[in-house]
Amino acid sequence: MTRFADPQSLDKAELESGAVFAPRFDANGLVTAITLEAGSNDVLMVAHMNAEAIAETLRSGYATYWSRSRGTLWKKGESSGELQQVVELRTDCDQDAIVLVVNQQGHGAACHTGRKSCFYRRIVLVDGEARLEDSGTPRLFDPATVYSK
Amino acid sequence: MTRFADPQSLDKAELESGAVFAPRFDANGLVTAITLEAGSNDVLMVAHMNAEAIAETLRSGYATYWSRSRGTLWKKGESSGELQQVVELRTDCDQDAIVLVVNQQGHGAACHTGRKSCFYRRIVLVDGEARLEDSGTPRLFDPATVYSK
Repeated sequence: MTRFADPQSLDKAELESGAVFAPRFDANGLVTAITLEAGSNDVLMVAHMNAEAIAETLRSGYATYWSRSRGTLWKKGESSGELQQVVELRTDCDQDAIVLVVNQQGHGAACHTGRKSCFYRRIVLVDGEARLEDSGTPRLFDPATVYSK
Repeated sequence: MTRFADPQSLDKAELESGAVFAPRFDANGLVTAITLEAGSNDVLMVAHMNAEAIAETLRSGYATYWSRSRGTLWKKGESSGELQQVVELRTDCDQDAIVLVVNQQGHGAACHTGRKSCFYRRIVLVDGEARLEDSGTPRLFDPATVYSK
């Protein structure tokens, strides 16, 4: 398994400008992962990765996350068929987040609700109250069918 | 201040399909915030928001986060001039993340290093080892000048 450098071993300049990948995992051993569709740049989903998930993603070329609810490694699309082929991985200035640029396979739906993106609702103010407004993103698959297989 | 519904009061269908905005804050009272540039969809940065930051962003129309390092509300660009005018806010299926679509003002640099985006380095495998490769994103301002004011 790929090992990563310890961010504590780097000074700020090295962390922010260097070539050493030293992910700054939180207390639970996770970094935030943001997944974008290649080409459109559309944000598909937000999840988390531990060291193993990053290593497996680098090794396999397919997005693998850490499922906080199940407490397991989670190869995206393994049950639904909605695999994510990785085009590029990036990290941010302080190395506590990762962007995955992917080709969304299957029906093209990253969200478990069957939609392309998990971000299908806008937050709007109505008479001073924050409400959600559906942006009308269509469902590309029926979750009841896909997840009952 | 805008108040938000308690996600515990909603069932799964209401949380995922409803019009009630009930952000699922973590143990620290935060949700993940992903900021995209309007038009290009380029991911600029990842930060965190608490209830007050969301309320202030909705009220003012400018991106306001919670600074975990300083433990304060953080109006982005207040010291650097790199304000972010909000075009749209979205939340995800389980309401624990927020996307901000913004017009990046000032020099057009969201990152404190002076670059447009914090995600200026690619993660690449070199002889089986994960390394960072600068994508060549130019610095739009000199942090030493901007933050010494």
